[in-house]
Amino acid sequence: MHINEQLQAAELRVELGDRSYPIWIGSKLVERLGELCLSKQLSTKSPMMIITDTHVEALHLSTAKQSLEAAGYRVAVHVVPAGESSKSLSHLEACITTALEAGLDRKSAVVALGGGVVGDLAGFVAASYMRGVRFIQVPTTILAHDSSVGGKVAVNHPLAKNIIGAFYQPEMVVYDTSTLLTLPLREVRAGLAEMLKHGLIWDQRFADWCLEHADELLSLREEVLQYGLYAGCAVKAQVVSKDEREQDLRAILNLGHTIGHALEAVGQYGELLHGEAISIGMIGSAMLAERLGEAADILPYTRRMIEAFGLPTQIPASYDTEDIMSAMMHDKKFSEGEMVFVVPTAIGKVEIRRDVPVALVREIVDELKGGARG
Amino acid sequence: MHINEQLQAAELRVELGDRSYPIWIGSKLVERLGELCLSKQLSTKSPMMIITDTHVEALHLSTAKQSLEAAGYRVAVHVVPAGESSKSLSHLEACITTALEAGLDRKSAVVALGGGVVGDLAGFVAASYMRGVRFIQVPTTILAHDSSVGGKVAVNHPLAKNIIGAFYQPEMVVYDTSTLLTLPLREVRAGLAEMLKHGLIWDQRFADWCLEHADELLSLREEVLQYGLYAGCAVKAQVVSKDEREQDLRAILNLGHTIGHALEAVGQYGELLHGEAISIGMIGSAMLAERLGEAADILPYTRRMIEAFGLPTQIPASYDTEDIMSAMMHDKKFSEGEMVFVVPTAIGKVEIRRDVPVALVREIVDELKGGARG
Ligand SMILES: NC(=O)c1ccc[n+]([C@@H]2O[C@H](COP(=O)([O-])OP(=O)(O)OC[C@H]3O[C@@H](n4cnc5c(N)ncnc54)[C@H](O)[C@@H]3O)[C@@H](O)[C@H]2O)c1
Ligand SMILES: NC(=O)c1ccc[n+]([C@@H]2O[C@H](COP(=O)([O-])OP(=O)(O)OC[C@H]3O[C@@H](n4cnc5c(N)ncnc54)[C@H](O)[C@@H]3O)[C@@H](O)[C@H]2O)c1
Ligand SMILES: [Zn+2]
Ligand SMILES: [Zn+2]
Repeated sequence: MHINEQLQAAELRVELGDRSYPIWIGSKLVERLGELCLSKQLSTKSPMMIITDTHVEALHLSTAKQSLEAAGYRVAVHVVPAGESSKSLSHLEACITTALEAGLDRKSAVVALGGGVVGDLAGFVAASYMRGVRFIQVPTTILAHDSSVGGKVAVNHPLAKNIIGAFYQPEMVVYDTSTLLTLPLREVRAGLAEMLKHGLIWDQRFADWCLEHADELLSLREEVLQYGLYAGCAVKAQVVSKDEREQDLRAILNLGHTIGHALEAVGQYGELLHGEAISIGMIGSAMLAERLGEAADILPYTRRMIEAFGLPTQIPASYDTEDIMSAMMHDKKFSEGEMVFVVPTAIGKVEIRRDVPVALVREIVDELKGGARG
Repeated sequence: MHINEQLQAAELRVELGDRSYPIWIGSKLVERLGELCLSKQLSTKSPMMIITDTHVEALHLSTAKQSLEAAGYRVAVHVVPAGESSKSLSHLEACITTALEAGLDRKSAVVALGGGVVGDLAGFVAASYMRGVRFIQVPTTILAHDSSVGGKVAVNHPLAKNIIGAFYQPEMVVYDTSTLLTLPLREVRAGLAEMLKHGLIWDQRFADWCLEHADELLSLREEVLQYGLYAGCAVKAQVVSKDEREQDLRAILNLGHTIGHALEAVGQYGELLHGEAISIGMIGSAMLAERLGEAADILPYTRRMIEAFGLPTQIPASYDTEDIMSAMMHDKKFSEGEMVFVVPTAIGKVEIRRDVPVALVREIVDELKGGARG
């Protein structure tokens, strides 16, 4: 972990040529947001806009706003309702109304203060307002260590999630682990699921470290969290640096997501959190690995990990197998009888298999609903 | 003019590194759209979507669609009402509904068949659907020789034009001069105004050529039109190649636009066409040049040009000077008493002046309303 002494924070660089940017991870960084913006040469002549949601507004907005104002910035605020439904074109339009009324110009910055919902929405606002203004990510959930790296920003369409968006990189990511202390435990667990995924797809030592530090992570020990977020972001950053626009490699980030997305859809995006759904999906991928003859330790290891973090390993019994299958088929339009899946080949390693029989996936879904094996 | 023998069309390349693309200009190219898409390796496995408006639908859609289908493409069509109001987020959402229902995927292309309205809307659809799919411009207005080059795509917000968008380059531009034969004369004139602008800002010989060929251009002689569009696109392409993201040079494309935009706003975007408004604006800029001591031939030359094309040289008498001034000030938020203007310094040459006194601009606006001088 590279420590920036001056900032007293870990510093990670996402390497993307002239779109490279730093991620700072540390305690109480939101109190220093103004200073950090000055250090990135953001002009105090142009107004800024913070986008946040109702929960985060109550908890962390005033700290962020005061810090920016103390540094000399004029700050407009746009608050959206907490929850996925704020990722819509109508909220995008409302954000842009606020930006226009506050007089944001081409040199202005949009600051996302919140979790993945706020980050994705604010990122698309920044990408599209005047065809692109500066963008600062201030993630306040653990899940956002995933969503704030990689430059995917988007809103939803009534017929499909994340379908309207852009690749748009932030200027910097300011990850203040103190903000995470107010997260509900269920959100903590769900966010950690993506951290586990980053270990499982790329880095066995990091996966082992997560397993060993499960309790400290769950109880939000800041220094432990900082290392976990750093290492998780580092995996994502490496994958994204090699494949910014999702040509091939980036697909490995979808471990557990094919089944996971289907479960979220069947639960109408209201029952399972994303991290919970992909936890079940990662168990499914490990079962698939076993059936396809990959290393024997993958399934028990994955299960141990998911359980250590109190995340679900089974599909709710009320979910219909055929509904799940058809959500999966719809999602990707698989051709005749075979599906594309991210399959582990060892702890810390995965491959993309394009030849997974639909029948085998159906069997595994059945088992995930509490069938005999596994 | 570079002629591609195989295509029997003029070919111009917009140089933008790995986003470079060709513009083909010729007669009856829409009949060969399918062939051209195949030549660009657009897969016939992925469905395409044509976006067009009600006027163009009636005139040119079937030719385009048949050509694509004959080449093996499945083609969905989305038709928006003709007119500026189709450049909105709600039409964007409707286009994306059509795309989803037709199963457009990451390898699909969006085809803009129409004028600048359709091009700007469809371009933003292409830029944002799945975070970016392929984009083909098939401009059917003369004005679109401007809008189809440069990669600016956008929709409007109730409070501001073109404020939500992206920089997104097309794969190719297929400019079929036969489609222009159905244009109403008023649209022809207005489109030619941007062509004149391209001469005035960059290329005296081209400006002279326009003046000499005014009648042939107005009567839509195809070979003459082809050369004019080629040369006009070439100016825009050169400027854009040097400054894709509008840092500095690109601002010269705004000759006549500061006053022009204000006139469009005061007329509530329903009275003057864009090309008409900027024609008056270009007269205004030439008057400014005269007052600021630039070459004496600029104003008479500009006036002769605008008149030769039957474009307006005066502000409608009913427009209030203060309304125009405040639309202008609002547009750019000029600081204490000085404004930024593109000012001609010779025929074919302009510079950006940041020191134009507001009082002088007010005088010129008054004169443009039919005052004594000019
Ligand atoms: N762009 C990407 O690459 C990417 C990757 C993964 C997920 N995502 C997106 O991220 C979203 C999910 O992210 P999320 O889980 O962070 O959701 P979220 O933003 O909805 O946050 C979860 C909940 O926690 C609350 N919250 C946020 N910070 C808090 C804090 N510090 N204290 C207390 N409560 C707090 C929120 O108000 C919300 O109720 C989804 O929309 C998903 O599509 C995007
Ligand atoms: N992106 C850019 O760089 C850029 C530059 C300049 C202008 N623009 C935008 O372009 C738009 C204006 O473009 P426009 O003047 O082409 O407007 P437009 O697309 O509305 O077309 C003008 C009219 O002509 C009709 N029409 C189009 N093709 C026709 C044909 N072949 N035959 C008969 N009728 C036809 C249209 O239906 C419409 O009624 C504005 O929205 C402006 O903001 C964009
Ligand atoms: Zn995820
Ligand atoms: Zn124009």
